[in-house]
Amino acid sequence: MAQTQPQPQTPTPIRFGILGCADIARKVSRAISLSPNAIIYAIGSRSFEKAAKFAASNNFPDSAKIYGSYDAVLDDPNVDAVYVPLPTSLHIKWAVAAAEKKKHILLEKPVALNVGEFDKVVEACELNGLQLMDSTMWMHNPRTAKMKEFLSDTEKFGHLRSIHATFTFAADQDFLENDIRVKPDLDALGALGDAGWYCVRFILWANDFNLPKSVTALPGTIFNKAGVIISCGAALHWEDGKVATFHCSFLANLTMTVTASGTKGSLHLNDFVIPFEEKQGSFTTATDSGFTELVTGWAPLPSQHTVMTDLPQEARMVTEFSRLVKGVKNGDGAVEKMWPTISRKTQLVLDAVKTSVEKGGEAVSLS
Amino acid sequence: MAQTQPQPQTPTPIRFGILGCADIARKVSRAISLSPNAIIYAIGSRSFEKAAKFAASNNFPDSAKIYGSYDAVLDDPNVDAVYVPLPTSLHIKWAVAAAEKKKHILLEKPVALNVGEFDKVVEACELNGLQLMDSTMWMHNPRTAKMKEFLSDTEKFGHLRSIHATFTFAADQDFLENDIRVKPDLDALGALGDAGWYCVRFILWANDFNLPKSVTALPGTIFNKAGVIISCGAALHWEDGKVATFHCSFLANLTMTVTASGTKGSLHLNDFVIPFEEKQGSFTTATDSGFTELVTGWAPLPSQHTVMTDLPQEARMVTEFSRLVKGVKNGDGAVEKMWPTISRKTQLVLDAVKTSVEKGGEAVSLS
Repeated sequence: MAQTQPQPQTPTPIRFGILGCADIARKVSRAISLSPNAIIYAIGSRSFEKAAKFAASNNFPDSAKIYGSYDAVLDDPNVDAVYVPLPTSLHIKWAVAAAEKKKHILLEKPVALNVGEFDKVVEACELNGLQLMDSTMWMHNPRTAKMKEFLSDTEKFGHLRSIHATFTFAADQDFLENDIRVKPDLDALGALGDAGWYCVRFILWANDFNLPKSVTALPGTIFNKAGVIISCGAALHWEDGKVATFHCSFLANLTMTVTASGTKGSLHLNDFVIPFEEKQGSFTTATDSGFTELVTGWAPLPSQHTVMTDLPQEARMVTEFSRLVKGVKNGDGAVEKMWPTISRKTQLVLDAVKTSVEKGGEAVSLS
Repeated sequence: MAQTQPQPQTPTPIRFGILGCADIARKVSRAISLSPNAIIYAIGSRSFEKAAKFAASNNFPDSAKIYGSYDAVLDDPNVDAVYVPLPTSLHIKWAVAAAEKKKHILLEKPVALNVGEFDKVVEACELNGLQLMDSTMWMHNPRTAKMKEFLSDTEKFGHLRSIHATFTFAADQDFLENDIRVKPDLDALGALGDAGWYCVRFILWANDFNLPKSVTALPGTIFNKAGVIISCGAALHWEDGKVATFHCSFLANLTMTVTASGTKGSLHLNDFVIPFEEKQGSFTTATDSGFTELVTGWAPLPSQHTVMTDLPQEARMVTEFSRLVKGVKNGDGAVEKMWPTISRKTQLVLDAVKTSVEKGGEAVSLS
């Protein structure tokens, strides 16, 4: 086990250890490199060779440590934080292990197989005074803040009444047979845990993270042969009459649409998870929409807004996470509990959808 | 009762009689005037003065007959066809009466309070060899044909997997208290019969009018004090796994969104009922959508399509209806049964949603 004590390039950046060589770790590795306050410090895989190859093909700094196990990463005292892109079923084991080794945690979604497991991760992080954040990148796009501004504007948007989110992509045969997201022992939540996570997160985000009163799975859930959900949807319903629906699937062309209607305004976007372009994101708003005199057209017309971003959303996520970690580490900041709180709420709704699916579409109460 | 036998301007155009002075009749009157094969021939209201005022303020031709009753319009032998924008509860009485007087019928939506009533209208039209068409204007926009081309393209769109439609508008206090669409004795289907009609029609249209296997009302239906639906939604589910959801409401800012996802492509538009602009309509398509190398953007990007129209969609509707009527009248064409058939299917789904609402969200089978 490596026990070297290398000097980081600068004492300032947060030193990331990466657990495993998942495909998504390529994107997040780049994000760490792009972040001004973070560096890739180490990667561990069950295979040293695999880790070395991953580091080489993803422009890791020469200084990056290569380890032949996840444990070795956690045992490296210079690793400040870990990024955990492991299959969901392994989150509880490795996130808790990381917390016990005092590593802050950036955790891939879905955060756990169920909220009970996630609570153990949260508990371990709290016990050790660690920042926990899930890797929902779009939350960190500056477009998101701009959309929130609009949704919070009681004059321009009013109060949310309904929201619909769709996230589908057309998985190829190899994915449908071999991807961890279709395996009951790896990512047992399937399309719900993957694409559905984003839909639920957006819906909750638009609702200021107020949980719905009830969650009802819609008819038409599709399972693969192993019993994993590959297509499903649900309806959410709030005490005050707000409603939401979402649909997530591995079986239809890439679609990432949100429509939110408020008493005074509405919001649309067709790329809510991953913006069409890296350096900018758009959305459409409308306020007090009505018709021309004989109802032959709209007046006013909706308007499009484009928000530029210097850093891609995933790099902004790493930067924000690292900023929080640095505060905790230096003692001049505190753990931001909002992040695990919203992870938990998202997981809670996913769990309710799954329960409703299992009960044939019975409404599951969350209040 | 007027028994004059005026000469129409030309023997060719179909001579319309309009039953009542509903607000929507203003738009359709203009559409009749714009149509090359139709003329406004007569209008009848329970009040002669109201009819006269309506004619004067809506640029009716000087030749237009003004009648103080609906019966008088039906009794005028020169009236070829009637446009029926009366409250839904009156459709059965006046559409059947019109059919018995051999008038072809352009009928506002929802076509009836329930499919049983509509069947009586259909029967009366069939007995008398008459064309019946509902007034779903967007069906006649050339954009609709272009979208159908895309949805039917197995290479570009593949097979439909899911579709969501939202149609909401923010009714003002006067509407919510006085409009016929909130009155149980007039338009008892409320928002479902009005905004919901369009959502259901689009969903069925995209499904080549194959009826769903089941219809399930979503939690969160809102009724007014009189028990009329002013906000609701439903999930539809087909035997082959296709799913659809819709939301319709009088309580949120004008929103007219459709998202359809197929195995290979997707379709979006935000103005499906009434295009933003009268002379053109746009929609967005995507085919084989995927991501850039590190999943930091889309490749290829969706593309926007704009379809111009010489005549507004409602005038194209009148023109098509009149073309069919003329064929029947001249004996060189036949009644197009597709139109009442799709009206009936739309009504059947509305009925199922209403039943499901009444049964607290129980699935209603349509197979």
